Amino acid sequence: MSTTDRELRVGMVGYAFMGAAHSQAWRTVNRVFDLPARARMALICGRDTAKVADAAGRLGWDAHTTDWRELVASDDIDVVDVCTPGDSHAEIALAALAAGKHVLCEKPLANTISEARAMAAAAVTAQAAGVRSMCGFNYRRVPAVAMMRQLVADGRLGVIRHVRATYLQDWIVDPQFPLVWRLQRDRAGSGALGDIGAHIIDLTQYVTGRRITGVSAVTETFVKERPLPAGSSGLAATVDGAAVDGLTAADANGADGHRPATGMVTVDDAAVFVARLDGGVLATYEASRFATGRKNALRVEINGSLGTVAFDLERLNELEFYDATRPAAEQGFSRILVTEGEHPYMSAWWPPGHIIGYEHSFTHQARDFIEAVATGVDPAPSFVDGLQVQLVLDAVTRSAELGSSWTEVEPALTTVAA
Amino acid sequence: MSTTDRELRVGMVGYAFMGAAHSQAWRTVNRVFDLPARARMALICGRDTAKVADAAGRLGWDAHTTDWRELVASDDIDVVDVCTPGDSHAEIALAALAAGKHVLCEKPLANTISEARAMAAAAVTAQAAGVRSMCGFNYRRVPAVAMMRQLVADGRLGVIRHVRATYLQDWIVDPQFPLVWRLQRDRAGSGALGDIGAHIIDLTQYVTGRRITGVSAVTETFVKERPLPAGSSGLAATVDGAAVDGLTAADANGADGHRPATGMVTVDDAAVFVARLDGGVLATYEASRFATGRKNALRVEINGSLGTVAFDLERLNELEFYDATRPAAEQGFSRILVTEGEHPYMSAWWPPGHIIGYEHSFTHQARDFIEAVATGVDPAPSFVDGLQVQLVLDAVTRSAELGSSWTEVEPALTTVAA
Amino acid sequence: MSTTDRELRVGMVGYAFMGAAHSQAWRTVNRVFDLPARARMALICGRDTAKVADAAGRLGWDAHTTDWRELVASDDIDVVDVCTPGDSHAEIALAALAAGKHVLCEKPLANTISEARAMAAAAVTAQAAGVRSMCGFNYRRVPAVAMMRQLVADGRLGVIRHVRATYLQDWIVDPQFPLVWRLQRDRAGSGALGDIGAHIIDLTQYVTGRRITGVSAVTETFVKERPLPAGSSGLAATVDGAAVDGLTAADANGADGHRPATGMVTVDDAAVFVARLDGGVLATYEASRFATGRKNALRVEINGSLGTVAFDLERLNELEFYDATRPAAEQGFSRILVTEGEHPYMSAWWPPGHIIGYEHSFTHQARDFIEAVATGVDPAPSFVDGLQVQLVLDAVTRSAELGSSWTEVEPALTTVAA
Amino acid sequence: MSTTDRELRVGMVGYAFMGAAHSQAWRTVNRVFDLPARARMALICGRDTAKVADAAGRLGWDAHTTDWRELVASDDIDVVDVCTPGDSHAEIALAALAAGKHVLCEKPLANTISEARAMAAAAVTAQAAGVRSMCGFNYRRVPAVAMMRQLVADGRLGVIRHVRATYLQDWIVDPQFPLVWRLQRDRAGSGALGDIGAHIIDLTQYVTGRRITGVSAVTETFVKERPLPAGSSGLAATVDGAAVDGLTAADANGADGHRPATGMVTVDDAAVFVARLDGGVLATYEASRFATGRKNALRVEINGSLGTVAFDLERLNELEFYDATRPAAEQGFSRILVTEGEHPYMSAWWPPGHIIGYEHSFTHQARDFIEAVATGVDPAPSFVDGLQVQLVLDAVTRSAELGSSWTEVEPALTTVAA
Repeated sequence: MSTTDRELRVGMVGYAFMGAAHSQAWRTVNRVFDLPARARMALICGRDTAKVADAAGRLGWDAHTTDWRELVASDDIDVVDVCTPGDSHAEIALAALAAGKHVLCEKPLANTISEARAMAAAAVTAQAAGVRSMCGFNYRRVPAVAMMRQLVADGRLGVIRHVRATYLQDWIVDPQFPLVWRLQRDRAGSGALGDIGAHIIDLTQYVTGRRITGVSAVTETFVKERPLPAGSSGLAATVDGAAVDGLTAADANGADGHRPATGMVTVDDAAVFVARLDGGVLATYEASRFATGRKNALRVEINGSLGTVAFDLERLNELEFYDATRPAAEQGFSRILVTEGEHPYMSAWWPPGHIIGYEHSFTHQARDFIEAVATGVDPAPSFVDGLQVQLVLDAVTRSAELGSSWTEVEPALTTVAA
Repeated sequence: MSTTDRELRVGMVGYAFMGAAHSQAWRTVNRVFDLPARARMALICGRDTAKVADAAGRLGWDAHTTDWRELVASDDIDVVDVCTPGDSHAEIALAALAAGKHVLCEKPLANTISEARAMAAAAVTAQAAGVRSMCGFNYRRVPAVAMMRQLVADGRLGVIRHVRATYLQDWIVDPQFPLVWRLQRDRAGSGALGDIGAHIIDLTQYVTGRRITGVSAVTETFVKERPLPAGSSGLAATVDGAAVDGLTAADANGADGHRPATGMVTVDDAAVFVARLDGGVLATYEASRFATGRKNALRVEINGSLGTVAFDLERLNELEFYDATRPAAEQGFSRILVTEGEHPYMSAWWPPGHIIGYEHSFTHQARDFIEAVATGVDPAPSFVDGLQVQLVLDAVTRSAELGSSWTEVEPALTTVAA
Repeated sequence: MSTTDRELRVGMVGYAFMGAAHSQAWRTVNRVFDLPARARMALICGRDTAKVADAAGRLGWDAHTTDWRELVASDDIDVVDVCTPGDSHAEIALAALAAGKHVLCEKPLANTISEARAMAAAAVTAQAAGVRSMCGFNYRRVPAVAMMRQLVADGRLGVIRHVRATYLQDWIVDPQFPLVWRLQRDRAGSGALGDIGAHIIDLTQYVTGRRITGVSAVTETFVKERPLPAGSSGLAATVDGAAVDGLTAADANGADGHRPATGMVTVDDAAVFVARLDGGVLATYEASRFATGRKNALRVEINGSLGTVAFDLERLNELEFYDATRPAAEQGFSRILVTEGEHPYMSAWWPPGHIIGYEHSFTHQARDFIEAVATGVDPAPSFVDGLQVQLVLDAVTRSAELGSSWTEVEPALTTVAA
Repeated sequence: MSTTDRELRVGMVGYAFMGAAHSQAWRTVNRVFDLPARARMALICGRDTAKVADAAGRLGWDAHTTDWRELVASDDIDVVDVCTPGDSHAEIALAALAAGKHVLCEKPLANTISEARAMAAAAVTAQAAGVRSMCGFNYRRVPAVAMMRQLVADGRLGVIRHVRATYLQDWIVDPQFPLVWRLQRDRAGSGALGDIGAHIIDLTQYVTGRRITGVSAVTETFVKERPLPAGSSGLAATVDGAAVDGLTAADANGADGHRPATGMVTVDDAAVFVARLDGGVLATYEASRFATGRKNALRVEINGSLGTVAFDLERLNELEFYDATRPAAEQGFSRILVTEGEHPYMSAWWPPGHIIGYEHSFTHQARDFIEAVATGVDPAPSFVDGLQVQLVLDAVTRSAELGSSWTEVEPALTTVAA
């Protein structure tokens, strides 16, 4: 494999769930794929000195800092990897692009349309100078998802009629689960909608090659008040009586330890919407954190006049494909184990039937990002693609606020150009 | 089993798909279940003399007629079983109730709200005279569905949060499939919505014990013009150049045989909607005849704070139940094979693991109908329940016509009382 | 459908589990299939007058008797349907053939090789006089099984390499389950081996078109002593202190009610064996009544050089087919819903996706039996086929007794000819 | 996580499929788990200088050598990781133990009983000096497998009755697939039996805590002659006309390129056997490389008097558990997604529902090995456990050679002691 001497020095901002996943990707990618450049895990940034030092040691970064501006400005950094909550994406990414750094930014691209628009515009401008940017919709890099897109692109599904997409989790079903940052609008932008709904919006637009043109939506916050958290990591958290900055304790009794202090949930717990994609496609979408028993159930089904594909992230090594052009008596949903050398990304891994996991989507994302940067090509999804998702999220929110009225989604390209 | 001498003499109107299914039920029910009365397959009615005579012989009815009014008026008939297309339900059922006959009427109850309202009112009136009526939502009698309802009723799901229901078929994906009566508004009332959407509306309201209170919908007719049919049976049909009564041939070339005559599809091919049920439940519904590869995919999932149930009609002997009160490490979706003697209806059939089929839901429906009639109890679903479904169908249609705007669904009980 | 006047008057011996299943078949077959003759449910026979009278009324037989010799001798009977335990098969079937009656005999054909040999010889003799006979391996008539056979016959699997067959149940896992007749060698012949093992032996030989040529086996009786039964029906039973005829109470305390009387289990609880089929096929078989959670899990997988089929009786409407001649990236196990008009038997039933159940295999068996008799053709499986299964069962038993030593299976045809 | 300064310097022999998998484990383990020592990827050894140098760079090893004796003797190595084909395991492992190195040796432990016996004896001796050894049955470290063992150990399955184990692959179904080292007895020891059969032998003994005491077996080589390989990696290979060292070209025409030279397959393609485990357990085992469509289908089911567990390596994040102590109507196979923090190894990875892959079993193996070495505990499976598997493999081979006669398996502990 690679014997290249070219190095891409990565500076990553954030070290929680996404930081760990990205670290595993940067650490692994050149050990598995033969690429024209090598990622170097150069610098990690976080707000807490002790914690970021620990993360650097544990995750294997060369150095650490608490100042993301220093990271962005450093001459020793080629790539800025933004893994923070959505409220800081725009500021960091815009600064990085301005500094001429290639940027990989986690999804959703931003918390507001105006931020996302600014980022997309900056990314388009930076392209001209050879600066690359990518929005981290990692599920595009699941081999089965890439295969779905190829099947659609090859016309194997015929005319697309239906998209059916859900992303279901259940980690906040318990009303005593605390008010972590993902449940606060100022940090997370939205709830299930932006966190996991964004994934199915991007994924279905990517696979079908079609854009969502309008939506009619309902959103809901089932549990409106929750205990304030003592601490959290990943999607887990603990509760105690301590107030969290910026939150008003709803219950004064919290202070004496008899009852934990609480705060208001300011994001959606679930969002459902019907939609149309261009080309006459009818679609349903659902994102929820209240689907008891569904842990990470991103499920997509696409029906066309000639065939159907169905995918479930909890079984990400499998793709179901129904080919309606086969003899009638033999038609059926084929469970394809997407682990063959012929499948996207898989020739680099293990023999057939030896499955890969969630984290591999990040390794594949890193692979494609490195290759694009090293060969001077713009990677996808672009910030404009990220903005497109943001425009759908915004339309969903507005439709829900306006009695589910039909809400058009404008094309991102138009808006960026304008 | 039954040694009763009491007979319920059934007169059935219609002999196509539903007529065959109901015949199998009346023929079988007393052979399997011990009941206080015996069904007698007394009289079958259809418009074509030769065909109804043939059906009587084949399906095993004692006599036949071409005049449903004669059947309804006959002193030798106790039960009128209405298996015709929706446009004749109201006239037949109202006459039967007026004649003091117990009525089993196929779903959807009627093609219009006003008809359904009249039927529900007549049924309520007839109750006072001991005349029973039932709307044929047969899937309530699938053992796994009955079990779902029981689990919800027992509080095993806790607070219901989500309903997710699809009924997907694919029998008209081919644009050359002909314009059968189910694709004509004047006969069928609506398309996928009323034919199969009605089932998931009733089933989810039944299982949750909750009413749909509002909807936001989109409907679509993907293929707007189709060849006129030569003949059809069940869901199959053939095409030729002959015009069908009451249809305008869209293509004059049809007459000379070079191209089949065509007509306009006047119903929906697919309907999708988001909904709320009372008690704060968020729901999505989809009915489609364009879901390639999905043959009879009625799938329902209901998430509650303590558990989830999931059901798929193509595997109707199975129920998936997730019990979130079990130890965390052991929680999972249990695939319950609903074939034990402990399960609804099943002690009458075969040993555990010996599965039943689609038609058994009709046998169970006949069982419950006979028992209710014989013991002087009103069976469910009542015509009021049928009207409730009709009110949802109507709200869906209106919402779709009005740009998916949120449309409230009035309670049937109110409307019947009024 | 059928307007034939020709009647086949059926006399059935036995009215328990198999009697009920056969009754449902005779009752239904002409209502669904268009056949050259009509089955008439003429006479049912059982040892207990009251019980057989009740069964006749409940199951819908014209008349009843307690004397099977009268039934066999009657001029008003064309077909004798033998549904008794295995120890009486030979006597009844031989008498029926001698009387010129067509015979449908439940499996296993007999309890001993010598009986089975005599029956096969008598059937061959009777053929010459136009008397038909069939052994009731009903699972051959499951549409998915018939389709498997066709795929193999069409060469779609290439060279067959492996057969993997299990038939797993769990109804006697509880050591307190009583000693019903199926657990007594003198009545049942053998245990899991003959009851359910016989099915997978026949089914795999049928589907592959190959004969088992040798076996190496182990059998086991996990629970060697059980309470005597109070009564049983189907596969269920209750326990009390009363002794069952012909059984020695193992515990004298049983009489005073303190402990139920017990008896020795004289058949196998489970049998496992490796085998070879002609043509170089390697196979494993397992039949058990101790596979907790497996209710009726007849599962068969057949691997060939070009493809694989897999079947599970608990999902009998589905067939999994892997076609290794498709493009590498698209190969997968296709879950074929065997409910299309193109599938064996299915055009007579419901629309696609509307599933059938266990009992339909008997209706299909009746259909094929009637057609064969009416058109003067020998139906399959013949008594010689039944003997072939018996020879395998015998080889398994002998191998198990002789330290699992390799035991050849002689061809039935040879033995019958000789 | 770990801030330990203690380093375990690993020297790995071999760099093909297993070498890559082990490298990924050593590279990742301390980044994910908090351990008392850090693995250092110090030295890699292979026979070809260029190839091992390339592997060192690609896989991330500090240094490389072509002399395993140098590696074993080095003062800078603490752990010797043996990833070569089975024919060199004994020599390397014995030398390493003699040199006081901790040894992790891939399975099967050796190619012969005598080698395995010597290794087990040496390991027992070395233990006294604090030198640790482990045989690489990595599937023990799949979380669902570890959970199965725990369920059995906790008595949740009651009395174990049945084990049903298959390991099915299909990579040599094509007769033109070349004669790679895995198909040669002198290199591989045996075929499917030792390569994949060894895994299910170890796994089922591990999970049940019971030893296989006797077997009756059949083995088969379906394709007896194959083209000689041009090259191979992982389980893939290409064919050309070049002879491979030590193989006699069966076809002299191979030399001129018209037909590839061929050689005889000297191992089994498939092995099937019935077995008993102590405690009265009845079992079936099958290992095959001819199961078309099955890529890596290690499937195990264990039935006990109180429950059943079922596992499929192609869906390694899932465990099916049937708990027969639950209410009858609710019993079913629970599909447990083994991705919760409560599950073995999983708290170190991603949130619930975010699945892991094949390679993670090696990371977990490295985790347990490091912990055992660092804390001075003997890891499992020991070389004695590896010998136990070897004794079963040997019994299978002997039984197959002797007409499937029942063949006892001696306990490894006895043989090592003696």
